[in-house]
Amino acid sequence: MEVKKIVLQESEIPRQWYNILPDMPTPLEPPLHPGTGQPVGPEDLAPIFPMPLIEQEVSQERYIDIPEEVLEKYLIWRPTPLYRAYSLERYLDTPAKIYFKNEGVSPAGSHKPNTALAQVYYNKISGTERITTETGAGQWGSALSFCCSLFGIECKVFMVKVSYNQKPYRRIMMETWGATCVPSPSNETEAGRKILAQDPDSPGSLGIAISEAVEAAVADEKTKYSLGSVLNHVLLHQTVIGLEAQKQLAMVGDYPDVVIGCAGGGSNFAGCALPFVRDKINGKQVEIIAVEPTSCPTMTRGPFSYDFGDTVQMTPLLPMHTLGHTFVPEPIHAGGLRYHGMAPIVSQLVLDGLVTPVAIPQLETFQAGVTFARTEGFISAPETDHAVAMTIREALKAKEEGKEKVILMNWSGHGLVDMAAYEAYLHGKLSDHDLPQDEIERALKDIEPLPKPKQAAK
Amino acid sequence: MEVKKIVLQESEIPRQWYNILPDMPTPLEPPLHPGTGQPVGPEDLAPIFPMPLIEQEVSQERYIDIPEEVLEKYLIWRPTPLYRAYSLERYLDTPAKIYFKNEGVSPAGSHKPNTALAQVYYNKISGTERITTETGAGQWGSALSFCCSLFGIECKVFMVKVSYNQKPYRRIMMETWGATCVPSPSNETEAGRKILAQDPDSPGSLGIAISEAVEAAVADEKTKYSLGSVLNHVLLHQTVIGLEAQKQLAMVGDYPDVVIGCAGGGSNFAGCALPFVRDKINGKQVEIIAVEPTSCPTMTRGPFSYDFGDTVQMTPLLPMHTLGHTFVPEPIHAGGLRYHGMAPIVSQLVLDGLVTPVAIPQLETFQAGVTFARTEGFISAPETDHAVAMTIREALKAKEEGKEKVILMNWSGHGLVDMAAYEAYLHGKLSDHDLPQDEIERALKDIEPLPKPKQAAK
Repeated sequence: MEVKKIVLQESEIPRQWYNILPDMPTPLEPPLHPGTGQPVGPEDLAPIFPMPLIEQEVSQERYIDIPEEVLEKYLIWRPTPLYRAYSLERYLDTPAKIYFKNEGVSPAGSHKPNTALAQVYYNKISGTERITTETGAGQWGSALSFCCSLFGIECKVFMVKVSYNQKPYRRIMMETWGATCVPSPSNETEAGRKILAQDPDSPGSLGIAISEAVEAAVADEKTKYSLGSVLNHVLLHQTVIGLEAQKQLAMVGDYPDVVIGCAGGGSNFAGCALPFVRDKINGKQVEIIAVEPTSCPTMTRGPFSYDFGDTVQMTPLLPMHTLGHTFVPEPIHAGGLRYHGMAPIVSQLVLDGLVTPVAIPQLETFQAGVTFARTEGFISAPETDHAVAMTIREALKAKEEGKEKVILMNWSGHGLVDMAAYEAYLHGKLSDHDLPQDEIERALKDIEPLPKPKQAAK
Repeated sequence: MEVKKIVLQESEIPRQWYNILPDMPTPLEPPLHPGTGQPVGPEDLAPIFPMPLIEQEVSQERYIDIPEEVLEKYLIWRPTPLYRAYSLERYLDTPAKIYFKNEGVSPAGSHKPNTALAQVYYNKISGTERITTETGAGQWGSALSFCCSLFGIECKVFMVKVSYNQKPYRRIMMETWGATCVPSPSNETEAGRKILAQDPDSPGSLGIAISEAVEAAVADEKTKYSLGSVLNHVLLHQTVIGLEAQKQLAMVGDYPDVVIGCAGGGSNFAGCALPFVRDKINGKQVEIIAVEPTSCPTMTRGPFSYDFGDTVQMTPLLPMHTLGHTFVPEPIHAGGLRYHGMAPIVSQLVLDGLVTPVAIPQLETFQAGVTFARTEGFISAPETDHAVAMTIREALKAKEEGKEKVILMNWSGHGLVDMAAYEAYLHGKLSDHDLPQDEIERALKDIEPLPKPKQAAK
């Protein structure tokens, strides 16, 4: 029988995360304070993050120990299986070998708990009693709720009101894990009350929800804020994915020619890809592809610039590929890929030519997801379908070229809580939208006055 | 670090199912033809089942080889991990060791594909081109749809109309896997048209849906029918669960004092329990508990009698614990536990004192599910919460008695597609209902005229 799943024993779980900062050919530019335009220091971040995470954000240690308490709880779903997609290969009639790393086995159904667990732990040992965050579609909010319940920390999630009303399942998951989920804008914060005063029926936005969550954290010393993507320490925690995958591929004597992940803020992509970027920096031949939706083409059509992380201009300025903080993408179903910016680490690697960005339209991604479900069995999250679509493109290219390529895809999560998206697709209610250049340019005007980061030599 | 998950390599997957029929102290009484009252023969079943399954239904072989093609596709989710519930143990402060077998890792999220896959395979090699079935809440329908897609067989699911309208996620899962899902009663069958003529707004019932699925199978030679529980061959396929669990427990040097599973038709319970019943018959000390809801107390309050498998009296008469085929339980959220009967194998084992039935009220099961989610992380299906509640009872009993008991629970599936049930619980909208004795007695009157099976000596 062919080996379908390559499974690590628990004793083989990686004991360290990989920090790419010291290996990057072009060092990251620092985040800037939104008021002063000066580099942000630890003291600026202390009101919202615990010190161990602030230290990780700028650490130059190449490997950072995973604390025992985190490892112990990682075992609830880690190590995750690496699958060989034999059925998909046969269906595509490709000579390529397709592997996918199944991050959907976590209780929350995605890769998000890899960092949620670490963040909750560092908060716990720093004396934090309550964590606030925002969530759009709910993947991050549910992952953080799950991990807070494991460490007995209170969790309050500001959920964009339109999602709160339309997607009750994620909210109920959070409540089942004991979190409080508040529709945003809410009456609980100054920021929320201000919006409600202007527009009592505001559907909310991720930008507003971030403002509320940060305000609630700043207001109380024992309360901190947590972010599910973009920042360096978040990507760091996710590298456990790629480190496991490398061990698993070595067990079957393979090394990928192509590594693929979808990218919204960049965390699942980077989690799988960064250990391979390390190898590439050290001379390995490997193509690393970050997939984004054509309706939110941050890396493929956005400039590398300083920009705010949020719509309401409260966060530090980050050096990143961005469509501008006022850019509003189409309401595509891959809610996790609708962010205007991209993690600074990923952005810099794109700029340095180590990561190749590709944008794929929505219909192709759902078609790929249905093909995947009918061959490999698993129904992917709409975000993950972007990685599946790119994998199918690469497998078909390998067929044309007659090459036995090895493809590794990060399968970041299942779609069982997102079935409405499949319904819309299967019943012909979805379409692709061309994004006019002038729409992008209009949003980019809002970042023109901001400082410019140094552009690395290509 | 403590070992949290006991993981088998794929090469260690069981190669045979365990058939308990030759080992049962009291042989099973045969099913009877509803018209003649005579034992049903293979020729009676041939219009609806393929011959290999009819043979398995009555086989006296103790071990039956799992075909290579089934094994190969089992690897999509099998072997499943066996978990040690350290966090739950600590929370309960119990000396008991709690293990749970995680059957929620399948693409459909439950144990159901263990038999769906086998049934689809035997249909495929028998020339079946289309399979029909019925589904209530949708767990079985989605599992069969998933497995049909793997073997390229058409699948038509008659889904109880009220569930079809209220629970769209399961329906969309079926459609994503390429199945056709029809609200029942439908215009596609005589049975459906008859009901609709009387009541165009009929919400449907499992009994009506069975009639439609069977009629559609009988009407076409290349179409067969498939059932997700109750029958001997269904339980046979599920024994892969218990056989794996035995290997995994042996790896850590444990053997259970108590084995627990929830039981609606009996398939997940039996799948885990039967290999342990075999050991018990051979002299091992082990308590085996089947958990049902107090609102549908088939084993604890229903007699052992011949009864129809369906409401509309089309199926053969089966010897089983039953509340009567006209019994209508409360609309509890554990839809899979609302069946009026119980698998003949499980019923006979209860009668022979090898299996202990326990009924648990709804609120206790959801409370247990929330405790489980907040300690072990995973959100259980409402059905599975019955097993969780019994496990907690046993762990607390072990604490009272100061005994280091080993408890094995079959965690039959996750609840991510059933979050509405948790919402109702968390927001105080659920209650327990005492089931009055006269309500049971009224339903039992309908089975009084039926033939009586021999009652085994206790």
